[in-house]
Parts: sequence; C-alpha cells; structure tokens
Amino acid sequence: MSELQNDRFLRALMRQPVDRTPIWMMRQAGRYLPEYRATRAQAGDFLSLCKNTPLACEVTLQPLERYPLDAAILFSDILTIPDAMGLGLYFETGEGPKFRNVIRSEADVAALPTLKADVDLDYVMNAVSTIRSALNGRVPLIGFSGSPWTLATYMVEGGSSKDFREAKKLAYAQPEVMHRLLDHLADSVIDYLNCQIRAGAQAVQIFDTWGGVLSGWAYQEFSLDYMKKIADGLIRENDGRRVPLIIFTKNGGQWLEAMAESGADALGLDWTTDIGNARARVGDRVALQGNMDPTMLYAPKERIRQEVADILKRFGPGTGHVFNLGHGITPGVDPEHAGAFIEAVVELSGEYHREG
Amino acid sequence: MSELQNDRFLRALMRQPVDRTPIWMMRQAGRYLPEYRATRAQAGDFLSLCKNTPLACEVTLQPLERYPLDAAILFSDILTIPDAMGLGLYFETGEGPKFRNVIRSEADVAALPTLKADVDLDYVMNAVSTIRSALNGRVPLIGFSGSPWTLATYMVEGGSSKDFREAKKLAYAQPEVMHRLLDHLADSVIDYLNCQIRAGAQAVQIFDTWGGVLSGWAYQEFSLDYMKKIADGLIRENDGRRVPLIIFTKNGGQWLEAMAESGADALGLDWTTDIGNARARVGDRVALQGNMDPTMLYAPKERIRQEVADILKRFGPGTGHVFNLGHGITPGVDPEHAGAFIEAVVELSGEYHREG
Repeated sequence: MSELQNDRFLRALMRQPVDRTPIWMMRQAGRYLPEYRATRAQAGDFLSLCKNTPLACEVTLQPLERYPLDAAILFSDILTIPDAMGLGLYFETGEGPKFRNVIRSEADVAALPTLKADVDLDYVMNAVSTIRSALNGRVPLIGFSGSPWTLATYMVEGGSSKDFREAKKLAYAQPEVMHRLLDHLADSVIDYLNCQIRAGAQAVQIFDTWGGVLSGWAYQEFSLDYMKKIADGLIRENDGRRVPLIIFTKNGGQWLEAMAESGADALGLDWTTDIGNARARVGDRVALQGNMDPTMLYAPKERIRQEVADILKRFGPGTGHVFNLGHGITPGVDPEHAGAFIEAVVELSGEYHREG
Repeated sequence: MSELQNDRFLRALMRQPVDRTPIWMMRQAGRYLPEYRATRAQAGDFLSLCKNTPLACEVTLQPLERYPLDAAILFSDILTIPDAMGLGLYFETGEGPKFRNVIRSEADVAALPTLKADVDLDYVMNAVSTIRSALNGRVPLIGFSGSPWTLATYMVEGGSSKDFREAKKLAYAQPEVMHRLLDHLADSVIDYLNCQIRAGAQAVQIFDTWGGVLSGWAYQEFSLDYMKKIADGLIRENDGRRVPLIIFTKNGGQWLEAMAESGADALGLDWTTDIGNARARVGDRVALQGNMDPTMLYAPKERIRQEVADILKRFGPGTGHVFNLGHGITPGVDPEHAGAFIEAVVELSGEYHREG
C-alpha cells in the first residue's frame, strides 16, 4: 500500500499533535454534489450504487476533488448487515429505508443466519479495497457500520420509526430476546468491520443513529454495552498503525462520560452538545469529532465562517478534535457553502495547534 | 371558586411536603381513550373540538373519571396563538399541523398583529373557566402555551419539519428578524397565559417541543431567553396562591442547569434524562416533572410497575417530583396500561414521602 501522505485525521483521533484541525463531513459523498447525482443516475438507485464497485469508488472520491478534506469515507449504507441476513432492504422515495421481512420474535432471532462478511458483503470489501487503492495514500479511508441497537430498530420496526414502539416493546417486555438479537448483531459488526479493516479501512466509525431515543439506563444496556463489545473485538492495529474507533450516538450528549469508557478512541458529537463542555467532561480519555449544525450550511458564508471560529474557540488549543458536522450534510446545501465551511476550518484552525 | 380538595400537584411543584407523588400525563385527554374518540367524532376535527367549549370541557374531564390523576390540563393546541394571528392553522391526517400563511421576512414579522388574548382567543378562556367550574375543586387545572421558539418554527416552516431549515436559516442569517418575531411571541404568550390564569388556570406549562433541535448557545439565545422573559411577565400569584410555571424542553437534558435559572418553578424532563442525575444537577432550585418513556406503556403491566418503581427510586425521598410521562401518551396505548401506570405511582410513591 502507498504511504499515507496526510495523517492529520488519524493523529487527531489519537490526540497526537497536528498542524491544523482535520476535517471531513458525514455524508460528504452525497446528493448536495451535482457530480454525485450524475453518477447515481448512471447506477440507478442508491443500493445499486453501493453495490457497483467502480461507481461507489467514484462517488467516494468526488468530494476530495472539490475540497481539501482530510479523510474519505466508504460509500455504503448502515443497513448492509441486515440486508445480507436476508431481510430485503429497499428504499421508497421520501420514506427512508425499509425491510421486506421483520424480526419480532425469539424464533425470528434464532433463525437469523451467521454473517460471513467477506462472502456475504463482498461488494463492501471490494469497494473498500478499490477506494483504498484509488486514494493512493492521499488521505485515510474510514470504514463504518450501524450500531447493533440502530440495526435492531430497523430490523424490528421494518424501517424508520417515530416512536420505535416495536423495538422498545421487545426490549422492555422480552429483554432476553432483544439481547440475543443485539449480541448476534454485535458479533456481525465485529466481523464486518474487521473485514473492512483487512480490506483497507484505516479508521472505523459506528453510527448509533437511534441510541439517543432511549432512556439513560436503556442506552447503557441496549446500545452502549454492545458498542463496548465491538470495541473489544475489533482489530485495533493494522500495518503497524492504530486503527481508531469512533462512536457516534445522535442525541447522546447526556452520556459522554459513559461513552468515553467504551474503548472507543473518539466520540462523535451532534450539534446540540457544546464541544468545550464535552471536552471538559471527557478529559484526555477520547478525542472528539464534530459538531457544527448541518443546517448552518444554509446560512451566508460569513456566518458559517463565524460558527467555525466559535467551535474552534470552544474546543480550545491542542489536538484531539476532528472537525465535522453534527450530522450528515443535507441534499439542499450549496456546494460552495460546504466549501466555505471546509476552508474556514483549514484557515482558522492552525492557531490552535501552535506550540504553546 | 370551590376550595381545592387535592393540591398535591401544586405542593410538589413548590417542593412542599406531600403524602405521595402527584401524577398527570401529557396528552391525558387523547385518542387512546375510546370516550375521547367518541366525543371528537361528535365535534368533527381536532380544532373544532378545541373551540367547542362544552365538548372541550368534556374531554378534559374524561381521564379524571377513569384514573386517580392529580391535575387536569386544558384541552387545546400549542398553536392557537399563530392561528389567532391569522396564519390559518389546519391539520392534515397523518401530517401534523400546518399553516396556510408563513413568516419568512422582516416585513412578515412587522405585519403580525398584536394579540389580545381575551378577545382573539376567547374560546380558550371560555374553556378554561368552564373546566375550572366543572372541576369544582377536585384537582388543579393546568393552562399551557407553546414556547416562542416552538411557535416560531411552525410559523416559519409552515408546519412540522425534519431539519428546521427555514427557521434556523432565519435565526442564523438574520438573527435580528428572528429576535423580533420571538419577542413579539413572548409578549403574546405572556398575555395568553395571564388570561388563562385570570380565567382559572392554577399552574401553567410552556411546551418547548423544538428547543432541543438547537445547539447549546442557540437554545439559550433563541429559546430559553424568551421563556425567561415569560417567567418575568407572568402573574405568579392568584387567589392568594402561587401559580407555578413548568417549562418543558424536549431533548433539553443537557441544559437543565441553565433552565433551573429561568424563573420557572419546575422543569419537565423527557425520558432520556436520568431523573436522579437531574435532581443532583438542579438541587433545590426547581421541582422536576416526568419522565417515563411513553413507549413503556406498550410493555406488560408488571414491567410498567417496575419502571415506575425504578424512577421513584432514582428521584429518591422527599418532595419536588411530579410524576408524568417523558412526552405525550400515544394513541395506540391500552387504557388499562395507562391505568396500571397511574396506579403504580399512587401505590408505590408513598414510602418516599414519609417523615424521615
């Protein structure tokens, strides 16, 4: 493999000194880019694009051609694992992901196959190795998965949900069944992420999109404990270099202390959390990633720049910060505004990293 | 007015001793009750029911006939104020509230009329005084309003929103226009709640449904500061008794310390926050209201009872707790499960209020 030319992202995740704050954006290869929309039109639907290795590689690299980003992220979906288990993932326009089959009972859980990620999700591994080669050491490649709890909500509900009634009913009424499902998913995520790491992912992120809909005790029991299990089971070093693990629980700002003990190297923050306050709470146990409100990208460029300055100031001097949005960039954003955001981080963050 | 026979709710809000923890449920007069659905069918749509004084009174009292609740809450909507300002509130099945006219510019804000709540929202005041009479001192009556920020999001977006793009764009790009709107709404809420208090409301709650979608600094600037203004402008004593103010910010668990300084007597908690942790953070500055996950009502009755026991234990001994759900009860709940919830609070909470 080619030597890594820009390791700011990996260094900041390990809280090692950097020249400026690294930046990438969740969903940076996405619909806000006209070149993405063109490639996606070629592929057909979203899932076909994920499964088309050359096109998935192409869209992964597109934002790097436009912007001075410090990491690339695998183009894929958080729901590939349940799809590979036979649940039949599909997308209905404007309605989010759905599954043809749902998991509601002990028998349903028992019938779930054991994932062999290198075989069952070979298209993901092909994408990882192809992108890694194409990157040619330019920036590190991030692999990812949904968290067990987040995968379980979709599998039990059969799609997105407003109140997660079925998933919570299972968790509250038959916790042993939910735990069996989560344990099975945690094993699958470990296998899945380890295969991504072997295929070339240099850092991995767990998207716990729906951990934040739980009560504190339930978050610990049904979401965080399984992310801990994953942290324990992952390959943490590859090619002589640490493979950092980032966990991101949307609406998880109340639980940062517990998340900092999970074994993750870094915590993703959504935009509701004050990053200065978060740093004080987690100390030097983990790095932090985030956390500008993605909706700020609809404001004028000068306002975006001011917000970047404010977030940098709140985090304060020293390493341990990877700049990002607090959630994925949305389709309506003007790419020039995304550019102004990234440029502001590049230009304004250096002063926080001078030798003191 | 008849003397109040059950003042547990008011006493707990003022952190005065009580014999057991008082309980009411957000949206307790709602679609989960067959008798509510029957009355609503008589009235026609939801807004017609709000505006029909005898029927609004009827549905307010229905849950009190079934359950030993310690408070009644005015049957109305959080969006009555913008409706009275001419925005044209309507409901589309399965889509939530919508407005025919939206507020997007400085001129739109300047053109908003000054609310005269006693005239423009006389149907609300009629409902308050009618319900208060019908209650005949059985339990106290809660009045309510949406928070200025929450009202503003609906007025700017024209309805519900996933990312609050338009409201945030206005707040971020033209904060002075958003502040003019919020200030006008805060004045209107003060007038509205004071009229409700004069008409007979014995406590008032501000529903800040969407404060939690903001960053910490933005929550303070665009939501909390205006709830503070309301706290300063409200009638706080009526008929020789304190009229307690409860503020409830959904997803506001990160900001309880600041909320405790707002001038409110009590903070509503959603279910994500650990109530023991919240009590430690706010100390004796405010009472707490909440906070069982409403989805727990879909679990078996024994599980609901266990959850009530856990929440009571987490809060611990002494007054200052009003039991509630962490959000409104949902239409699919079995009324018997709501009954088991309320019964558990009644039966299990006494031991936390014995003289030590």
